[in-house]
Amino acid sequence: MLTLAIGNKNYSSWSMRPWVLMKQAGVPFEERKVRFDNFEADDSQFKQAVLKINPAGRVPVLLDDDFAVWDSLAIAEYVAEKFPDRALWPREQRARARARSVCAEMHSGFTALRSHCGMNIEGPLAEVGRRIWQEQADVRKDVERIVQMWAELLAQHRGPMLFGEFSVADAFYAPVCMRFRTYALPLPAEAEAYVERVCALPAVKAWVADALQEQDFVPFDEPYRKSR
Amino acid sequence: MLTLAIGNKNYSSWSMRPWVLMKQAGVPFEERKVRFDNFEADDSQFKQAVLKINPAGRVPVLLDDDFAVWDSLAIAEYVAEKFPDRALWPREQRARARARSVCAEMHSGFTALRSHCGMNIEGPLAEVGRRIWQEQADVRKDVERIVQMWAELLAQHRGPMLFGEFSVADAFYAPVCMRFRTYALPLPAEAEAYVERVCALPAVKAWVADALQEQDFVPFDEPYRKSR
Repeated sequence: MLTLAIGNKNYSSWSMRPWVLMKQAGVPFEERKVRFDNFEADDSQFKQAVLKINPAGRVPVLLDDDFAVWDSLAIAEYVAEKFPDRALWPREQRARARARSVCAEMHSGFTALRSHCGMNIEGPLAEVGRRIWQEQADVRKDVERIVQMWAELLAQHRGPMLFGEFSVADAFYAPVCMRFRTYALPLPAEAEAYVERVCALPAVKAWVADALQEQDFVPFDEPYRKSR
Repeated sequence: MLTLAIGNKNYSSWSMRPWVLMKQAGVPFEERKVRFDNFEADDSQFKQAVLKINPAGRVPVLLDDDFAVWDSLAIAEYVAEKFPDRALWPREQRARARARSVCAEMHSGFTALRSHCGMNIEGPLAEVGRRIWQEQADVRKDVERIVQMWAELLAQHRGPMLFGEFSVADAFYAPVCMRFRTYALPLPAEAEAYVERVCALPAVKAWVADALQEQDFVPFDEPYRKSR
C-alpha cells in the first residue's frame, strides 16, 4: 500500500507535486499529514515525525509498505515505474527527456520566485506581489523564463497541458500556478490560461479545497501576514 | 552523436556529474567547454553561448545531435535510458528508487555546504575549511547527513561504491568529495575511505587532471582566494 506523507497543504509546494500527480493519475494512496511547526530545531514535532520515516528529514515521503522514497522527483520516477500504464512521463523519448529537464529545472532553480513568493494558497497577497514585482528583478527573470518555457511547450504539444496530456511536468508547475495566483503576478494571456487549466484539474481543486480548510497559521511560513 | 557542454572543470560541480557518469560508464561523447565569465549579465559570453543551446541558460547541456537535454539529473536519466546495458541506475527497483532519492536530495539540498564550500579543485583551502567548520553549524549538519547516508548505503550494498557498483549516485556525490578534499573537512575514516575510492575512479582522476591544467582564475567563483 502507498502512503504519502506531506506537510501543510496551504504551504508545502514540495508536497503538492506528488500528491497532485498521483491523485490526478488515479494512483491509489493514503495521505498522512505532518503539520509544520518548526524546521530549525531537530526536536520539532515535524522533524521528529519525519525523521522516523526519512533520514533527510523532509516531506514529501512516499511509503510503499515500509519502504521510503523521498524527494518529489524520486517519488515521481518511482510511481511512473510502478504504474507504467498511467504514462506519467510522456511516452515519446525526446518529450520525456524535455519533461525531465523542465522538472529538474524547477527542482533546483527559480530560487528568487520561491523565496520571495512562498506558496500560500489561502493568502491573497496581491499587494505584496505588486511590490515584489517592482523591486525584485530576479523574480521577474524567473517568471519570464517560466512563461517562455510554457509557451514553447504548449505550442509544440498543442496543450492543454505542457506535454499535451497531463504529466509529471504539470504536477511540478502546479505550485508555481498557486504562487502566480496568490501574488497576482502579471502574466501574458496564454500563461494565464494555462494557470486556469491547471487550477481546473480535479486533483488541484481537491488540494486547494483542503488547503483552504486547514485554517492553520504557521508563522515561519508567513513573511508577509501577521495573522489569518 | 553526444556532445556535453560543460563549464570550468575547476569550479563546475554541476558539469562534473554527467561528465564523470558518462566517462566512467564508457558512454562516448564529445566535450564542449564554455568558460565561465559572468552569470549575472545576460550579455556575458558564457550566457550567450549557453542560451543558444539551452533556454535555461545553464550548463551542463547534453546535445544528442541537435536535441538538447539540460540539467544534470535529466541528463543522467536520458543517458541511462539510451544505454540500458551500462546499468547507470541500480537494477533492483528499490535500490534504484533509493539512488534517485539521494541524487534528488543532492540536487535540491545541501545548500549550506554548497554555498560555503564551492567546488574549487585546485585550491587547497584547508584554513578556510577549518573556519567554516567552526562557524557554520549548517555546514556541519549537511556533512553529518552525507556521512550518515554514505555509511548506510555502503553497509547495505557492501561497497565499494554507494550502491555496490558505480552508479549515478557516485557521480552525483563526486563533487562533494572534491569539496571535502579542498576544504579538508573532518570525516570519519569510513567516509574518508569512500572519498579516496571516488578520487581513484579513472573518470574522476581525468576530470581532476583537466581541472588542474585549466589554470583559470574566475573571480566570482573565488570567495576566498585573491589570486592563484
